[in-house]
Formats: sequence, structure tokens, C-alpha cells
Amino acid sequence: MPATNRQLRLQSRPKGLLAPDDLQLVESPVLELKEGEALARVKYLSIDPTMRVWMAVDTYLPAVAIGEVMRALGLAEIVESRHAEFKKGDKVMGMTGLQDWVVIRAQEKMPFQKVPSIPFVSDTTFLGVLGITGLTACFGLTEIAKPQKGETLVVSAAAGATGSIAGQIGKIHGCRVVGIAGTDEKCKWLTDDLGFDAAINYKHPDWKEKLAAATPNGIDIDYENVGGEIMQEVLSRMNLFGRVALCGLISGYTKQDPGFANLGIVIVKRLRVQGFLIIDYVSRFMEGATQLGKWKMFGKLKDRETIVEGLGKAPDAINMLFSGGNTGKLIVKL
Amino acid sequence: MPATNRQLRLQSRPKGLLAPDDLQLVESPVLELKEGEALARVKYLSIDPTMRVWMAVDTYLPAVAIGEVMRALGLAEIVESRHAEFKKGDKVMGMTGLQDWVVIRAQEKMPFQKVPSIPFVSDTTFLGVLGITGLTACFGLTEIAKPQKGETLVVSAAAGATGSIAGQIGKIHGCRVVGIAGTDEKCKWLTDDLGFDAAINYKHPDWKEKLAAATPNGIDIDYENVGGEIMQEVLSRMNLFGRVALCGLISGYTKQDPGFANLGIVIVKRLRVQGFLIIDYVSRFMEGATQLGKWKMFGKLKDRETIVEGLGKAPDAINMLFSGGNTGKLIVKL
Repeated sequence: MPATNRQLRLQSRPKGLLAPDDLQLVESPVLELKEGEALARVKYLSIDPTMRVWMAVDTYLPAVAIGEVMRALGLAEIVESRHAEFKKGDKVMGMTGLQDWVVIRAQEKMPFQKVPSIPFVSDTTFLGVLGITGLTACFGLTEIAKPQKGETLVVSAAAGATGSIAGQIGKIHGCRVVGIAGTDEKCKWLTDDLGFDAAINYKHPDWKEKLAAATPNGIDIDYENVGGEIMQEVLSRMNLFGRVALCGLISGYTKQDPGFANLGIVIVKRLRVQGFLIIDYVSRFMEGATQLGKWKMFGKLKDRETIVEGLGKAPDAINMLFSGGNTGKLIVKL
Repeated sequence: MPATNRQLRLQSRPKGLLAPDDLQLVESPVLELKEGEALARVKYLSIDPTMRVWMAVDTYLPAVAIGEVMRALGLAEIVESRHAEFKKGDKVMGMTGLQDWVVIRAQEKMPFQKVPSIPFVSDTTFLGVLGITGLTACFGLTEIAKPQKGETLVVSAAAGATGSIAGQIGKIHGCRVVGIAGTDEKCKWLTDDLGFDAAINYKHPDWKEKLAAATPNGIDIDYENVGGEIMQEVLSRMNLFGRVALCGLISGYTKQDPGFANLGIVIVKRLRVQGFLIIDYVSRFMEGATQLGKWKMFGKLKDRETIVEGLGKAPDAINMLFSGGNTGKLIVKL
């Protein structure tokens, strides 16, 4: 059992990107385990855009309080247990926070879950395609957007963790899938490796013309991760009665004014814009993960990870999400 | 048969409210009727916010071309007919335009319909509660918002033609109904005459607190006619999985930047924001009008009209919509 635990605590609410002092690295003592507690060593941390929101405002979860360990989903291994559910060596997933060690209590508001050992499936997969990321893409696309064969689906932040899975699930449903991403390399990955029908680099000056050329029959579904100008352009090409599965608005998370959109077009085109959060599908996680697992096993879902090493790099990793530094799932390895 | 026809033709696209020169009053000759044509005298013109949109941009209908008679829904009486469907004395409804006389052709893109004569029902009712206005409120609320007994419905521009009907239909469905309007007198009409549970004058400095007090269980449905700051405040009080029936965004129609809304809250609250247009329900107009007629006959729907006299007053009447000058259906009587 270690004597101390390194933790990244929220010191100030960021304005824009994270500043070096927004998260402070502190060492806290690790106390003797009480009955009902387990100590786990954090191995991998999931770095997600929603963390930037948690640092700033109350939303579906309360904002992280100043002075608290920064909230994060992570994968950890039990090293000592007085907890009825977990024994030494178990791998667990849950809100570990940005720290080296986590004490899991019997009555967590957001309980930890055991991660199964499956041959040929790495632990980090449970933070990505078989975890919250994959489930978000799966339920968001199928339950909110309800894709039909032959429809055109556009995915923004398509080379990100969720977007890359959402687009592939669109292909499985028989859609024409067009991704929007921020580098030619990402676009090449989407079309050459993941099977997207087209991918548009929005940093090219003629990206709007390219989007138009790639969506000759208009757009039926927008799986929206970005908001702002990119979303507005996609909306302008939507077909009547199109659906927008509103997963994220990352372009606004580092700005004072969050993702605004022109709603006039929502009336004119009779669009359905629907927000969703994966937490509403908790009771169907097993069903979703089983489906995702099958698709992955049969090669219909490919994934990529961007791994950053070291707890101290977590703040930079969070900022990478907003500069587009990652491809696929972004993970900090401890 | 008259020798000339006074017409209001679009001379320039308005910026903001209509300027005196945006619509030009001209006299055109009335030509001999050809086979398949009927001449009708326009009696009443429906003045609707969407007209301001038609003057500015292509939307679900092309913008009115410069030099064309301004598009408007109206009620007219046939005075001479070589048209198979209509005979002298018939009352008809359709896109008469802002003019004294209209020639109805056999192949109109938007065909005219005969208006039935029903005892105790005035002709103008077919432009209001039994016409497009009432149908918009009816299908928008029931098909898009799907109200359930006990839910809280908020209606913006609640003393307007559509809002006043939408709120009453909400009451029929067992909702708690709160209206937002711009004068105390309108608010009094909503609560005392129409049976709204509460009405908030958004021009009072403490209207947000009053809205909060009037919606102690939050808001389940927003029947949205206004957009902008009013919509944003309503969204902030929506319950999880609430629905926004997006009927109009009148606060933006006279501005360069149309109704923008913060979509962050749509994700956090998992809202469904859905635009609609009454033209999608054409095949169900008879069903809707029959229902509205029954409700009206049994005293469950009350309506009020604001009548402005004279074709030359039509531009001022359009502007009245944006200054809140009308209560209930706004009509120009010729």
C-alpha cells in the first residue's frame, strides 16, 4: 500500500483552454482501508470533452468543486480490498478521477464495475469502443437518429472517439457516411481504414463545396459533436425531416458562449434536433456492449487510440481534444 | 367587373420593420377572363409573421420576387367565373395576395378552396381558429409536442393568433398552461377569458421570477413562437426529455441574425426540438378543422380578432405583429 497518492485537483475554472494552474498536482496521504473499501491502482484514464464541461458548470452532473480531485472515468486494478464485491487483482472501471490511486467505497453514487477478461481484447477497449464511447455512438445513432438504409449520415469530429464509431455504425446500417475532420491524415483514416464513403477536412478553404459534392442527395442525419459553423453548414444541407443527434458541441466548450445554432432552418426543414446523454441508457449497457463486441469481433468496427503517458500530462491531453491532437480514443496511461 | 385593381407589390426587401417604400401601391388593369379563370373580390387578408420571411428569403416557399404582388392568404368572393369549380357568389380561401381583386386560375400551384357557410360562424373564422392558424396550433401541439395530462406547457406569443389557440388546446389535453405575452391586458385575456393557468408579461423586469413561480414543476413542453431571449429562458426551465414544438421565431424575423439558440441545454436536458410547418398536414386539414370546429362549438376554444381596415394599412398591420399591436388573429378588411 502506497504512502501517498498523486492527485490532480481543480484549482480554478478554466477560461478557454486549460491553463497550467487550473489543475494542481498534489500529494495526499493514503489512509488505512475501512470496512467496505477497496484500494485500486489507476492504470488508464479516459480523456473526454465532457471533462471540460465538468470543470466549468453544473450540467447533468454538478461541476467539480474547487479543491476536489478532477472527475474522470478510468480503469483501475484492485490491490487491497475490504469491499464485498471486489478482490485483489480485479480490474474495475468507474469514476476514478485524475489520480494514481482510488479508494472505492461500498456506496458510491456512480458504482464501479468489474471489467471482464476477454482474449484479444485490451483493457483500454473498455474505455473506448466497448465502453462509454462506443455505447454513446451506438445508442445516439440508433435510438436518436434512427438511420435507414440509403440515407446520408454526416458525422462531425468524425476521427474522434465517438464520431469514428458512430460513422462505422452508420455504415453497418447501410447509410452513405461522410465524416468531417481536421487533418488530411484523419480523413484518409476514415475513408481508407474505416470505410467512410467520404471525409472532408474542414480546414481546407473549399470544405463547404467538398461537403456539398460528397452529399449529392443532401443530408438525412447529422451526428453532431461540434456545433458552431460546422454544424450550421451541415444543417444548411439537411433534407426535409432530417434528424440531428446532438451528442456534443465541442467547438463551444472552450468559449464563453456555448454552441448556438440558427433555429430558423430547423423550422423550414422540419428538422428534429434531439439531445441525449449516455447515462439514460445505463440499463441497456449490456445489450449495447454485446452488440458492439460482436461488430468488433467480426471486423465491422475498427478503433484507434491515442495514448499519452503520465498523470502530469492529463491537462495537456484534455487540451488536445480541442486542438484536434488525437485520433480515436484519447487515453492517459499511468 | 372593375377596370383596375389596387395591388401592393414588393419593391424592396425590408431591413428590420417594413419601411414605407418596401411595398408599393400600384393600379393594374383587370383583363378579360380567359377560359378556366375566375375573378374574386378580396374581402379579408390574413396577416401573419411568415409574410415578413417571404419578403426576405427563400424558405419553404420562394421569397416573393421584387415587383410581384405581395403573397398573402385571403378570403375572397367570386364575382365572375369561367372556372369549373367556382361560381359567382362562392366564397373562397387561398393565396389572394395583398390586392383588391384576384384572378383564380385553373392550375394554381396552391389551389383555392371553397369556404362553407355555417350558421353563427363568421367568414374570418376560416382565416383564424378554423383555418391555417388553428390547424397550425392543433397539429403543432398534438403531433409535435404530444401533450400528456398533468404536464406543464408554456406558450410564447401566447396572445397571438396561433399561441392563443395552442394554449387552449393544451388545456383541453389536461396540461397546466402558462402563456407569455407583452401586455398586462393580453395576460388578463389569457387567464380570465381563455382559461390559461397563468400568464407572464415579459416586459416586466421580474418576468423570469414570475415564470419560475408559475412553473413550479418545470416545463415539459415549449410551444415556441418567439425565439431569442424568451425561448432561452423557457429552455432553462425545461424538464429532462422536454419537447419544443418550434412554430416560429418572430423575435428574429426583423433582425439580420435569425433565431439563434443555445443548444448546450438541449443536450444536458435531452430535449427534442422539432420544427414543423402546417403545409405538411394538408391531407389532414379536414380532420383538424372538424376537431377545431367541435371544440369551438362547445365553447372550448375562444378567439379574438384584431381587424385593420383598408388595403393601404396592410404594411402597418404586418409591422403590428412585431410590435405586439394585435391580440388574437390579425386581419385586414378590404
